[in-house]
Amino acid sequence: MATKIIERLYNTDPELTYKPDLVKYETVHLPKITSYREELASKFPQETVLKPGLLADKGIEIPLDFESSVFKDGPKLAKASGFFTDRELEILELKAIEIIERIAAGEQTALETITAFIKQAAIAQQVTNCAMDFFPEEAFERARELDKYFAETGKTVGPMHGLPVSVKEHYAFKGKVTSCGFVSKLNDVEEIDAYITDLFKKTGAVYYIRTTQPQTIMHLDSFNNIIGLCRNPYNTALSPGGSSSGEAALVGMRGSPLGCGSDIGGSIRCPAAFCNIWGLKPTARRLSCLGSRSQFTKHSNEMILPTFGPMANSADDLELFMKVCSDSKPWLYDNYVLRMPWIKDVKFAIGDLKIAIVLDDGVVKPSPPILRALLLAKKALESAGVGKIIEWESFKTVEALEICYNAYTKDGNFNARAVLGASGEPLAPLTEHYMRFGTGDKKLSNLEIMECENRRDVLRQEFQLKMNERDIDFILTPAYFAPAGIPHKIKYWGYTAVYNILDLPGVSFPTGIKVNKSIDKKDVNYQPRNDMEEYEYPMYDEEVYDGMPIGLMLQGRRYHDEETLAAAKLIQEVISKASRT
Amino acid sequence: MATKIIERLYNTDPELTYKPDLVKYETVHLPKITSYREELASKFPQETVLKPGLLADKGIEIPLDFESSVFKDGPKLAKASGFFTDRELEILELKAIEIIERIAAGEQTALETITAFIKQAAIAQQVTNCAMDFFPEEAFERARELDKYFAETGKTVGPMHGLPVSVKEHYAFKGKVTSCGFVSKLNDVEEIDAYITDLFKKTGAVYYIRTTQPQTIMHLDSFNNIIGLCRNPYNTALSPGGSSSGEAALVGMRGSPLGCGSDIGGSIRCPAAFCNIWGLKPTARRLSCLGSRSQFTKHSNEMILPTFGPMANSADDLELFMKVCSDSKPWLYDNYVLRMPWIKDVKFAIGDLKIAIVLDDGVVKPSPPILRALLLAKKALESAGVGKIIEWESFKTVEALEICYNAYTKDGNFNARAVLGASGEPLAPLTEHYMRFGTGDKKLSNLEIMECENRRDVLRQEFQLKMNERDIDFILTPAYFAPAGIPHKIKYWGYTAVYNILDLPGVSFPTGIKVNKSIDKKDVNYQPRNDMEEYEYPMYDEEVYDGMPIGLMLQGRRYHDEETLAAAKLIQEVISKASRT
Repeated sequence: MATKIIERLYNTDPELTYKPDLVKYETVHLPKITSYREELASKFPQETVLKPGLLADKGIEIPLDFESSVFKDGPKLAKASGFFTDRELEILELKAIEIIERIAAGEQTALETITAFIKQAAIAQQVTNCAMDFFPEEAFERARELDKYFAETGKTVGPMHGLPVSVKEHYAFKGKVTSCGFVSKLNDVEEIDAYITDLFKKTGAVYYIRTTQPQTIMHLDSFNNIIGLCRNPYNTALSPGGSSSGEAALVGMRGSPLGCGSDIGGSIRCPAAFCNIWGLKPTARRLSCLGSRSQFTKHSNEMILPTFGPMANSADDLELFMKVCSDSKPWLYDNYVLRMPWIKDVKFAIGDLKIAIVLDDGVVKPSPPILRALLLAKKALESAGVGKIIEWESFKTVEALEICYNAYTKDGNFNARAVLGASGEPLAPLTEHYMRFGTGDKKLSNLEIMECENRRDVLRQEFQLKMNERDIDFILTPAYFAPAGIPHKIKYWGYTAVYNILDLPGVSFPTGIKVNKSIDKKDVNYQPRNDMEEYEYPMYDEEVYDGMPIGLMLQGRRYHDEETLAAAKLIQEVISKASRT
Repeated sequence: MATKIIERLYNTDPELTYKPDLVKYETVHLPKITSYREELASKFPQETVLKPGLLADKGIEIPLDFESSVFKDGPKLAKASGFFTDRELEILELKAIEIIERIAAGEQTALETITAFIKQAAIAQQVTNCAMDFFPEEAFERARELDKYFAETGKTVGPMHGLPVSVKEHYAFKGKVTSCGFVSKLNDVEEIDAYITDLFKKTGAVYYIRTTQPQTIMHLDSFNNIIGLCRNPYNTALSPGGSSSGEAALVGMRGSPLGCGSDIGGSIRCPAAFCNIWGLKPTARRLSCLGSRSQFTKHSNEMILPTFGPMANSADDLELFMKVCSDSKPWLYDNYVLRMPWIKDVKFAIGDLKIAIVLDDGVVKPSPPILRALLLAKKALESAGVGKIIEWESFKTVEALEICYNAYTKDGNFNARAVLGASGEPLAPLTEHYMRFGTGDKKLSNLEIMECENRRDVLRQEFQLKMNERDIDFILTPAYFAPAGIPHKIKYWGYTAVYNILDLPGVSFPTGIKVNKSIDKKDVNYQPRNDMEEYEYPMYDEEVYDGMPIGLMLQGRRYHDEETLAAAKLIQEVISKASRT
């Protein structure tokens, strides 16, 4: 008989306190949603609409609609579509740091850059439904301004001059609706920019798209009632992950060279791993979160802290984001931010790295392709002369999750209920799941919370001492048991959320390894050890996942974001090289 | 009619939930206290006992007992007592950094150093009753070991080789009772050293004394039921402040060159200012607090964070403490510590300093001598060419205190009641005061706490923006409305605690200015603006305070501990120079 951990981690009461008001929702709010969607759709250019049918000579079949199809060729569309010049295709392949270098050298204009990315974002939107907001005209105008400034002065306005940047919708954006996925907030026009949004604007970023997140921003999936489900660029029947769903899908399609996400339980690392891109969840408070919009408005929850963070197609671009933020000395303007300037010259030799690898977290065993990727990674690192690589023995995973889940619903869902209730919108299945985290609606007393916070502090210390005892600096781990999740079904956050409650920095990266249905067969004889594994493990199926790229994740020591990123870069080079041989 | 703020800041219910159990206390615990005191007394050397009567040719009258006398000559006793050689007197006057330099250069031994300080600590004990624990034999042994090591190797064991260090009793100390002033914990022998205690041991510190703190460690005064009241070295009828009472009294007597204190509401800065020494309250989490013992055991309270910190006779010695801690990279061993290495080369020119001066916090007006010191400081800084000095307009002081006081009793005194109740010990008057902070025994709900934490976060941000708007980096302020407090009476924490809830670093320092009864006359016509001021302000009296040295305090920006200390050093030089002219 499998162990029961679901009752320990979730409030399994059949009834939730929240009751949707479908009459109010349908009469008052559905019309708003419809017009929001129509307006959004009207912003996308007609000339990049993909016509259903076979793309000439490319072997790619464009479906009648992407929503109900299994489409795996998203990332190939730019080249196949015929919508781009060769120069534009070249631009789409550039790293963010290459784009700004070229523009600063006068080799490329901001206008041609944003033109390419806007066209590609339009394709990404068709394939993945990643956008919550799109404003190409403003982007063109800003790009022209920047080009004019550069032509006249020979200077850039800042280190992001001309760089297209995409941003998760819940970053406050001045003058634009910032609903954070709540129907009731569809009319909320922001008066300020988030610190980071504003900073990047000032340093020359060109904004053109804001991307989707799930209802309550608390799923490792993507559904909200405003724009619906976002899809994975590598397989539209799979989830792009969440909650930075739209960023991952867009960046994964190379519709943006640099995305702004956020993470409190895996929301950067999980979608980055699902969509074959890079994502950094910094240690909390290294970045300003001023202007982060969510259900929490008048209640602070420091039991677990969210963080913003970058998503991109290279480690260097993640670092660019961190450097630009750090160079602005955010701690002088946002009291929340730690005064920890980004250390710019961290470099490792492979022999310096001491790593533990998680082949199983003890709760949900990794699916066959993930396990194969981990073992390949281990072997590749050993061959490359890694300083040390040991298997990580699972350490208090369930206890960490118990504390973590109590933290998420510390307010007994008071705030979520308020913002949801304002429109009466129905709950997505994974919102119901989230509202059952910890003790769910039945909030803990203040003293119980203080005790739980003490358990968290003790656990953080124990975990650190365990890393010291095992003499390792990094943990190489899956981001999820499978290469991506099934929409509406992803319930297990264990591979990522543990590092949120521990407040350790983490980087997701593409391995170059792909699911191969002939070798990564479902283990049908596996006996799940607990009810969570019983739920999750059977969801992997080699037929569904065939061809999916596999991402992994590197977690580091608290506040050692620089080292974690530098190590991830090195490790990724080793693994992806091995994946090609 | 004066405004009522007491009801806003305190739970004024006449009854407290806590009821002493005097039968249990007197039958079970008083005998333990008596033997604890006797054992403590027996550790002090007989040869340094001060005999009542006139000290030959020195004009100093040693009272029959210090407890019931007004004795103002504590700091003169070393020289006057005749107990010391000239070389020992010279040693007592050295800074900690000079001591370690001399020992490392072979110019002084650890043994002669500790010998001088042990004798002076014995005098300090008679004058101030500062000790909770005293162990000279262990200290001599350690000093001999260190001297032997140095003689044999020509090397020091570490950067504190041979330095006598005193430590507030609630730092865990391996193998010794660590009661933190609670009677019920008088048998609690510690199994570990606090991180800092251990670190300093390893780097060569010589421990010989552990010093007193008040019941619950939550008074700006010094009384506990174990050893009673600690006295101010400059006037035994006045309080040494608290809660680092014993450290301040001892260091003020030069019975220790470097003390280890702690601060959550003024507990380093207030006693440092009262006892004419230097004290640094760092930003929270810059130092390890591992092994800090208090009533909180299984409940974390991160609404307001305590911090350890140094107390000494010079700014350089405070920096020594911080550097040694930072050089040990505590963030690798204690998850709580921020990875913020101490910046070692911070220097200012006077023209770089932008300061606001607090002439009144809007709640309790500074007493005449404090006001005179502030105005003299302002004039001196202006004459010295300070970059900027403006008067600080009081900003949300009462609101800050309201949040802060709710934070202190966040657990509704659950933990204090448990540890007090274990012995049934009676409450000191200022423990009753502390237990009424915020909503006192009537604890807030979890949601109310989250709301209050949000108010704190908003306030921190507003305060920082206010500093930006006023374009200042430092706040020069009293630590208390008077140069010291009256024992059992000090209720107003406003001048220090505001910076705890804001989490700003602060340094207390001696100004060189003393109360002069002929000019610092009590303002008998002053009309208090509120009931707190009505209580505090009349306590100042020029006859009582005549001759008391005046300390002030410099607060800086969050995490800018280095800058705050460097600026305080410069400012102190300017003010103390002006005080001599």
